[in-house]
Amino acid sequence: MRLSQLLIPTLREVPAEAEIPSHTLMLKAAMMRKLASGVYIYLPLGKRVLKKIEEIVREEMDRAGAQEVLMPAIIPAELLKESGRWDVFGPEMFKLKDRNDREFCLGPTHEEVFTDLVRNEVKSYRQLPLTIYQIQTKYRDERRPRFGVMRSREFIMKDAYSFDADWDGLDVSFDKMYDAYCRIFDRCGLKYTVVEADSGAMGGKDSKEFMVTSSVGEAVIAYCDSCGYAANEEKAECIVEHESDEEMKPLEKIHTPDVRTIDELVSYLDVKADKFVKTLIYKYKGKIAAVLVRGDREVNTVKLANLLKVNENDIDLAYEETVRSVTGANVGFAGPIGLKGDVLLIADAEVPMMKNIIVGANETDYHLKNANYGRDFKADVVSDIRKVVDGDKCPRCGNPLKLERGIEVGHIFKLGTKYSDALGANYIDENGNEKPMIMGCYGIGLNRIAAAAIEQNHDDKGIIWPMSIAPYHAIVVPVNVSNDAQRNLAEKIYDELSKAGIETLIDDRDLRAGVKFNDADLLGIPIRITVGKKASDNIVELKLRRDENSIELNYDEVVNKVKELIINSI
Amino acid sequence: MRLSQLLIPTLREVPAEAEIPSHTLMLKAAMMRKLASGVYIYLPLGKRVLKKIEEIVREEMDRAGAQEVLMPAIIPAELLKESGRWDVFGPEMFKLKDRNDREFCLGPTHEEVFTDLVRNEVKSYRQLPLTIYQIQTKYRDERRPRFGVMRSREFIMKDAYSFDADWDGLDVSFDKMYDAYCRIFDRCGLKYTVVEADSGAMGGKDSKEFMVTSSVGEAVIAYCDSCGYAANEEKAECIVEHESDEEMKPLEKIHTPDVRTIDELVSYLDVKADKFVKTLIYKYKGKIAAVLVRGDREVNTVKLANLLKVNENDIDLAYEETVRSVTGANVGFAGPIGLKGDVLLIADAEVPMMKNIIVGANETDYHLKNANYGRDFKADVVSDIRKVVDGDKCPRCGNPLKLERGIEVGHIFKLGTKYSDALGANYIDENGNEKPMIMGCYGIGLNRIAAAAIEQNHDDKGIIWPMSIAPYHAIVVPVNVSNDAQRNLAEKIYDELSKAGIETLIDDRDLRAGVKFNDADLLGIPIRITVGKKASDNIVELKLRRDENSIELNYDEVVNKVKELIINSI
Repeated sequence: MRLSQLLIPTLREVPAEAEIPSHTLMLKAAMMRKLASGVYIYLPLGKRVLKKIEEIVREEMDRAGAQEVLMPAIIPAELLKESGRWDVFGPEMFKLKDRNDREFCLGPTHEEVFTDLVRNEVKSYRQLPLTIYQIQTKYRDERRPRFGVMRSREFIMKDAYSFDADWDGLDVSFDKMYDAYCRIFDRCGLKYTVVEADSGAMGGKDSKEFMVTSSVGEAVIAYCDSCGYAANEEKAECIVEHESDEEMKPLEKIHTPDVRTIDELVSYLDVKADKFVKTLIYKYKGKIAAVLVRGDREVNTVKLANLLKVNENDIDLAYEETVRSVTGANVGFAGPIGLKGDVLLIADAEVPMMKNIIVGANETDYHLKNANYGRDFKADVVSDIRKVVDGDKCPRCGNPLKLERGIEVGHIFKLGTKYSDALGANYIDENGNEKPMIMGCYGIGLNRIAAAAIEQNHDDKGIIWPMSIAPYHAIVVPVNVSNDAQRNLAEKIYDELSKAGIETLIDDRDLRAGVKFNDADLLGIPIRITVGKKASDNIVELKLRRDENSIELNYDEVVNKVKELIINSI
Repeated sequence: MRLSQLLIPTLREVPAEAEIPSHTLMLKAAMMRKLASGVYIYLPLGKRVLKKIEEIVREEMDRAGAQEVLMPAIIPAELLKESGRWDVFGPEMFKLKDRNDREFCLGPTHEEVFTDLVRNEVKSYRQLPLTIYQIQTKYRDERRPRFGVMRSREFIMKDAYSFDADWDGLDVSFDKMYDAYCRIFDRCGLKYTVVEADSGAMGGKDSKEFMVTSSVGEAVIAYCDSCGYAANEEKAECIVEHESDEEMKPLEKIHTPDVRTIDELVSYLDVKADKFVKTLIYKYKGKIAAVLVRGDREVNTVKLANLLKVNENDIDLAYEETVRSVTGANVGFAGPIGLKGDVLLIADAEVPMMKNIIVGANETDYHLKNANYGRDFKADVVSDIRKVVDGDKCPRCGNPLKLERGIEVGHIFKLGTKYSDALGANYIDENGNEKPMIMGCYGIGLNRIAAAAIEQNHDDKGIIWPMSIAPYHAIVVPVNVSNDAQRNLAEKIYDELSKAGIETLIDDRDLRAGVKFNDADLLGIPIRITVGKKASDNIVELKLRRDENSIELNYDEVVNKVKELIINSI
């Protein structure tokens, strides 16, 4: 393709809307444009990258024995009502009505549609196991679309669903997908970590996320260098330290006028935050819970939701009014002793190990000193409900955990019978008995792979594409198109590369060499062939985008050299 | 792929929902399933066919120099309001709101989005011409979804848009797409006719449709065997015969009690329908038109809309109340003489040529006999506004036209400046002047190609796929899988064909031979290799789906023979 003809409106300036490198570079390198918040147009280069990722995903799914289908994006409401998810998704799901007032959503995911298909078409154990997938457009009306295609509202997902006769079968299907995912991300040139993820309150067994480590990732990963344990922040277990051997002191009420937050208390009382326990009042499904965590800890709402057996978005911090009615005090003075009404008191597992704690007094402008679990208060439930922090002990081996940010690019999940039970997806086994199918689901965000690849492969000048997903393999740059020798040789090389099946660009624009080199670097094409002054001697320069140095080649060596470079890097 | 593992729930019975052969066969051959009215799931075989069609379309678009992009399916309302089409589409467009109450539609087509992109990114004549396309999902909330994927509400379209500096440029871009379309339909194995289509009241020049001739087509084509003229029913011009040389007789009022329709008049008065003129009362944009056509003719509402310079869906037959107020009579007695109020009287070009016509008297239970144009009434406009009929004279050569039904699979259209004017998509020419880009648009329905191919290629037993879009090239059928020789030889052939890159199925199911042959015929796989009793002698049977007869082959000839058959038929 000729750059003079390609729709490639590269930008010189960093676009104001861009927040992270991949977002900036996808705009600057003319891969995409924004149509609306979280809704993007893919320009020719962006579309090519997506297509390459799509083909890798498809090849690996097919290799793993999964069968490709295509589901509609518009899904009748009845199916999601049958599974109970119509209300669960809330405003994140785009809803619409057709001309006959029938309700639909734009599928945020397709568990129900696949389960519905399979319950209708698969009846016997002989038809199992079955893994089916699609590469299809998904819709999520994100509250805060951001980071370009990293969190967009319309995006392309590969979603696969496995159906097995039993849990052992699911393990096999799951492992096949695990291996396929590793091959996919390897082939896309990504460095990734597989982490344990939360599998929700309702059924589900193993849940693993494929995380591309990146400082701009929205997720936090806890990992152990010693034993290899890795989990996302929501899932990572927190190990309880030994009980403090301090002696219990007498409970004491202290005056803390207008001192409400832990930070304010720390400076007012000159005591470290780990001597406090925070009491947080939550509402969930019309009920109230008071949650106790150490002053320097944070509540992990996923753990809390699992404990309460509700969805995470069913939980919210209570408004002032509720706090007042439960504590009898202004906000900022809640504590575990003397809460009023029907309140479930939950203590993080760390709390009973502490001694002589400072807590709110449930009285405006007062706290209690030297409160002790067991003596002064007891929780209804004690459980691990806090967020992991850097240096926490590894739940496997006890060595310190490290935290790192990551971009979730894939998720595989043993669903079990959640959807087959809800929708009645049963099969008849060898003995004529009806049983629910055991399901797994497996998702990959294609657009996100592109963005993650850029996050891991770029420099100040632009993108550095891994060969496997580069929009083109090579770019031929005649330094001066007015020079006949240069232009002719460049055209000849472009022709020969193209004929050899190498995806090649030629920058045939009548621009300064510097501009052309800048664009080539910005676009991130892995191999650049520069045709300059030595063209008359049939000598050209070959440079890899990821290297500083270039080599000189005789014109007739170019095709073989480029082929070799491509083969070695895919 | 093994049939024992493939998700291929073929049906024995004709599904009740199916209306036409392609619809029946796509369901029976397990290519698809209905999820909701006009919304389909593509099963593995259906998806493979779609993918093959997609690849052919993509190759031919790329060959023609078009560049692939990908647009969102959700389009902000503002863009369609800018072009004025937000209201034009009416209930056929799915509309939705996001969580911030911003309005979107699901794109029924993408003129506005492409024009918006190009007005933002293309500024100079140097960047033109430009043709960009996408293969993407479209949404139309059809009043009556039917015929399976032929008229569905979610479907895949290739839509391309060309942008040129001038009309000559558009001609070049248009011709390239014309040629690409011919190659696409040829490669898909379709027999088609290119017909002239209506280009609408607003701008637009050439408009051509690619019609696959088929008795189940929803469109009607008029064509001339002598000169090659072909047009769709809406566009086909009607030639006016010479004026009747009958002598004018005196106007006469006749009593026709309760005789309202042409059929009733024909039998009541015993006069042929071509002696009558019907007067039809239409409403359009709050105004009223009375339209005169010969009794045995039908009004072509597209011609009428163009004449009135409105959209076709702005025109409707008037309700009884309006008819009464305009005619002063019950419905069924409208006529051109003595209409009341502000009514635009339009006569089809044929009417002034007639003599001594019978028309409604604008008086309940009365008609007029021997009405004559010019003497008794005159129209405000005389124009060709009727539908073409079989035997009408060809507007080019005067020989009789024939009518045939067709399935529209492609449409190419010289839009001109309709959208570039509306959205301000201008460029700066060589002299620094700002000018609107000249646009063309080009659409192909991918799902419809699959259905049309089945309509043209099937028999009582099932589908007969053209090789180029067949889900698999060959199917190996061991007659009896319990027989070792048969099973082993079949597996060996399956292996070798697969290794040779031939897309092969093996029917490894333990079923009766008759059932397996029936399924193979139903699926329409072009080449069947039957491994039966002669397996022990390494002899197998090769049969083409489209032929009655089979040939015997030695096992080691199979791969070469199959390769040869594929090469010769793609």
